[in-house]
Amino acid sequence: MNKIKSFGIIGGDIRQLYCARSALDDGYAVLVSGFEKCDEKMGIENVSPETAVNASDALILPLPVSKDGRQLYSPFSDKPVSAADILSLVKKGQPVFCGLEGSLPASEFSGIEHYFYGKREDFAVANAVPTAEGAIEAAMKNSDITLASSECLVAGYGRIGRVLSSFLRGLGAEVTVSARKSRDIEFIRASGMRAVNTGSIKGRFDFIFNTVPSLVFDRKTLADCAAGAIIIDLASQPGGVDREAAGIMNIPVYHALSLPGKVAPKTAGVIIKNAVYNIIGEEGK
Amino acid sequence: MNKIKSFGIIGGDIRQLYCARSALDDGYAVLVSGFEKCDEKMGIENVSPETAVNASDALILPLPVSKDGRQLYSPFSDKPVSAADILSLVKKGQPVFCGLEGSLPASEFSGIEHYFYGKREDFAVANAVPTAEGAIEAAMKNSDITLASSECLVAGYGRIGRVLSSFLRGLGAEVTVSARKSRDIEFIRASGMRAVNTGSIKGRFDFIFNTVPSLVFDRKTLADCAAGAIIIDLASQPGGVDREAAGIMNIPVYHALSLPGKVAPKTAGVIIKNAVYNIIGEEGK
Amino acid sequence: MNKIKSFGIIGGDIRQLYCARSALDDGYAVLVSGFEKCDEKMGIENVSPETAVNASDALILPLPVSKDGRQLYSPFSDKPVSAADILSLVKKGQPVFCGLEGSLPASEFSGIEHYFYGKREDFAVANAVPTAEGAIEAAMKNSDITLASSECLVAGYGRIGRVLSSFLRGLGAEVTVSARKSRDIEFIRASGMRAVNTGSIKGRFDFIFNTVPSLVFDRKTLADCAAGAIIIDLASQPGGVDREAAGIMNIPVYHALSLPGKVAPKTAGVIIKNAVYNIIGEEGK
Amino acid sequence: MNKIKSFGIIGGDIRQLYCARSALDDGYAVLVSGFEKCDEKMGIENVSPETAVNASDALILPLPVSKDGRQLYSPFSDKPVSAADILSLVKKGQPVFCGLEGSLPASEFSGIEHYFYGKREDFAVANAVPTAEGAIEAAMKNSDITLASSECLVAGYGRIGRVLSSFLRGLGAEVTVSARKSRDIEFIRASGMRAVNTGSIKGRFDFIFNTVPSLVFDRKTLADCAAGAIIIDLASQPGGVDREAAGIMNIPVYHALSLPGKVAPKTAGVIIKNAVYNIIGEEGK
Repeated sequence: MNKIKSFGIIGGDIRQLYCARSALDDGYAVLVSGFEKCDEKMGIENVSPETAVNASDALILPLPVSKDGRQLYSPFSDKPVSAADILSLVKKGQPVFCGLEGSLPASEFSGIEHYFYGKREDFAVANAVPTAEGAIEAAMKNSDITLASSECLVAGYGRIGRVLSSFLRGLGAEVTVSARKSRDIEFIRASGMRAVNTGSIKGRFDFIFNTVPSLVFDRKTLADCAAGAIIIDLASQPGGVDREAAGIMNIPVYHALSLPGKVAPKTAGVIIKNAVYNIIGEEGK
Repeated sequence: MNKIKSFGIIGGDIRQLYCARSALDDGYAVLVSGFEKCDEKMGIENVSPETAVNASDALILPLPVSKDGRQLYSPFSDKPVSAADILSLVKKGQPVFCGLEGSLPASEFSGIEHYFYGKREDFAVANAVPTAEGAIEAAMKNSDITLASSECLVAGYGRIGRVLSSFLRGLGAEVTVSARKSRDIEFIRASGMRAVNTGSIKGRFDFIFNTVPSLVFDRKTLADCAAGAIIIDLASQPGGVDREAAGIMNIPVYHALSLPGKVAPKTAGVIIKNAVYNIIGEEGK
Repeated sequence: MNKIKSFGIIGGDIRQLYCARSALDDGYAVLVSGFEKCDEKMGIENVSPETAVNASDALILPLPVSKDGRQLYSPFSDKPVSAADILSLVKKGQPVFCGLEGSLPASEFSGIEHYFYGKREDFAVANAVPTAEGAIEAAMKNSDITLASSECLVAGYGRIGRVLSSFLRGLGAEVTVSARKSRDIEFIRASGMRAVNTGSIKGRFDFIFNTVPSLVFDRKTLADCAAGAIIIDLASQPGGVDREAAGIMNIPVYHALSLPGKVAPKTAGVIIKNAVYNIIGEEGK
Repeated sequence: MNKIKSFGIIGGDIRQLYCARSALDDGYAVLVSGFEKCDEKMGIENVSPETAVNASDALILPLPVSKDGRQLYSPFSDKPVSAADILSLVKKGQPVFCGLEGSLPASEFSGIEHYFYGKREDFAVANAVPTAEGAIEAAMKNSDITLASSECLVAGYGRIGRVLSSFLRGLGAEVTVSARKSRDIEFIRASGMRAVNTGSIKGRFDFIFNTVPSLVFDRKTLADCAAGAIIIDLASQPGGVDREAAGIMNIPVYHALSLPGKVAPKTAGVIIKNAVYNIIGEEGK
């Protein structure tokens, strides 16, 4: 195993370049393609897509592979790159590591040995860390008080809620976490934090962090717990807050999405690399 | 819902008495039975099993219900109590909350509305806390160094591993946690601890805590990481350590089982009560 | 005691207004002066300096009282206010709580019962918290990696070093703290962190936070530990870093000063109020 | 400097033997004397006091040097050893590291280059760690609830209070710390804990840890905060608790003294060694 000696990394944003740099530092040969417009190349050779495919043992494609169903997601490329064209060049036995298929039809991958690193749970857990830090940075930036000694509510105790609540406690905040499952309620208490049921949040909070992708903070819940708070909403669109009601109540809401790539792109690039390595380890490549 | 106003708590050890006391403090009427030989009655009336069944809305039976398949587990009772006899007294609509059936045939419960609080995950998570504290107390008692600044290994990142590793870090130990799943490896790292794969533990540790119920610490692994360590084995019988090999290598092994009832029976009693309350809440009783 | 029922708060920045608001919420009568140009009055009456002095039991002056030796430090005032004029209005038995005299001659305070809240150690400790948070926010903002799992060095274990190192550890960073006194070295170790002597810092760090007001990071020390790091310098002017050498080595240095008022002015205002309250309590006013 | 190549370690309890072992592991030649009755010699040669003095560059004497003013404190010695005799053998330029003089007249040390490691603040801070762990072990052992989620009061925020409160928080307890100085109150809050003034302790606590060597817990304070609690008193004789009043109120008090040597003698021995090393470093020996 570990027969892969080189990667072709095609398309994607700055995270892919950090991923490339980190794999290079680990001793892999790495070619990138689609970074013509990126000022900082990090000492990595940028080649044509064809060369990147032909000269590498495995490919790493972005997250998502495509946003429009046709072109590769490649914001630093100087011209459009067809996702189908790239995939048609893939050789037998050349594994392709993709983030998520995005809008690309699954049929495009037929006959190709491919893996979605963006669907892995280890990838999601690892990204909870830069997400939690980004949420904390947003809270610090948008408030006139310290997190230390403040009353914080974290709604949801999934991956992000678990990491975020621990960080907030480490910063000296008073942390309440909401969850629905009684086992999570017990884990929250075992971590030295207050637990409340997500369905019946009440209280007075300075900061509210929402991680739940459903309308937790409707008009009534906002009235019950959010006066005087600022809300950092980390749930994917449309978020978990009734924005209109919040506006009427004068509660600021910051919708913070895709934080890892924004606040810690180098860490996010290493997380992509680690997920690819984990697949390689499991598949014995 | 919440139609239950009184509990009959029959059999069990001191935890059941603490459970009774705590329910009484919450405003329930509580009768206990089977505590004749217990010096400390905590101000609760001890009655006959028949009275306890007849005068209560719901019953709480011990964990396990029976150890020999016939008698109720009732170490403080002044005479044997037949589990079948108790169950035959149960009225229609009178729920019975049991820890685990133990050696009792499932058929004994037929026609009875019964729930096993001992099988619930919230119950298991809550018990991870006294288990972790008991493990720490055992480590402190059996070593001539402090946990602070020591090198600790926690094998396994289930409920107990998760709580125990956090406590050890809170005591200033250097904590390494082993896990098998890559998602758990990421959670361990996100918690600021070192992670190793359970299949390839190496290193030098002062304290090793095993939570994995399989032979993790075989002869080879002991040789790779346990010289100079003491081992606290928390896994149920037969534990996760090759005791013979450890003996030859002069590695002390402390097999610590059923810790909640031993080190924090009052907390353990409240955990039983909370699990019963959670069932009541979910079932709308 | 506690004869003071009203405060006149004259001059200063937004912190004084938050201080005023918080004292008002505690039940004191509060008049402010010198906030004509501040859009947000927080519901507090802005009056002339004369009225503020005449109608209050005690005065709170800013931090510093004056920056040029003549005018009161009063950035929100619509016209210059002479510090001497204010002080000449003070009545016998009317205590004046000043931050620091700033450039004002000590003689200006002769015959006036005055206290410098800015010189108190409780004030300095309390301000270490927003300073530490501001340093963390600056580090997050100016880096492309997470603090979690990063190698952090905190130079100095005074008030700020103590709070900051604890927060960084709470965020999952690997923290090394430098100190000179052997007792501090032991406290650092007791907190589960690595300790090094400030005179011989070596290592590889992602983030370096300097709290020591002397040239700790000279050319040699930068070469020994700072390649690849970013430096947040919290020491007052001129800071503790050889900026020229850092520039040549391509090490970014962010000099972050007066953080409490910038990153958490409301908290900073409450800290001023608490320091004043502490003086009142100690002096039996 | 660092001219010392060998130590003679004479008298003392098991800590001195661990100190000896640790210095030996560091590359020093080490002779011990006064451990004839100790079963476990840890591979170190036990010699006569004369040999230990004559064959070593420096001496390490116990803590205290003498308990009765005449004999060396030497519980494992097979015969009494006169402290004066030992000191009379010391050569010019042979430093003697003593714990504390104990009951020995200061005149006995005249003309001898001697240092009291037991008076050093780094020594005291380092010993706060095993003391805090010992206090936690005593609390765990003597209660029927977990520290996690319990209400803990730590009276006093000196060395022990500071380390102990941090450990308790790390175990998931709700921690209140009492102090007298307003700067300490702020440090306690900055650490995410509740602060109260030592002079006006009120509340409801499960565990009370006293570190203050004066009568903090008089009859009134016990009535105000200690019903239902257990008290671990860490203050030196006579402690800080009105034992008679506590007895009447049925509040258990455990007076826990000299914990480092009892609960973690190996750690305590290394702490002695480190203090000696620190003196050597400072004095350029």
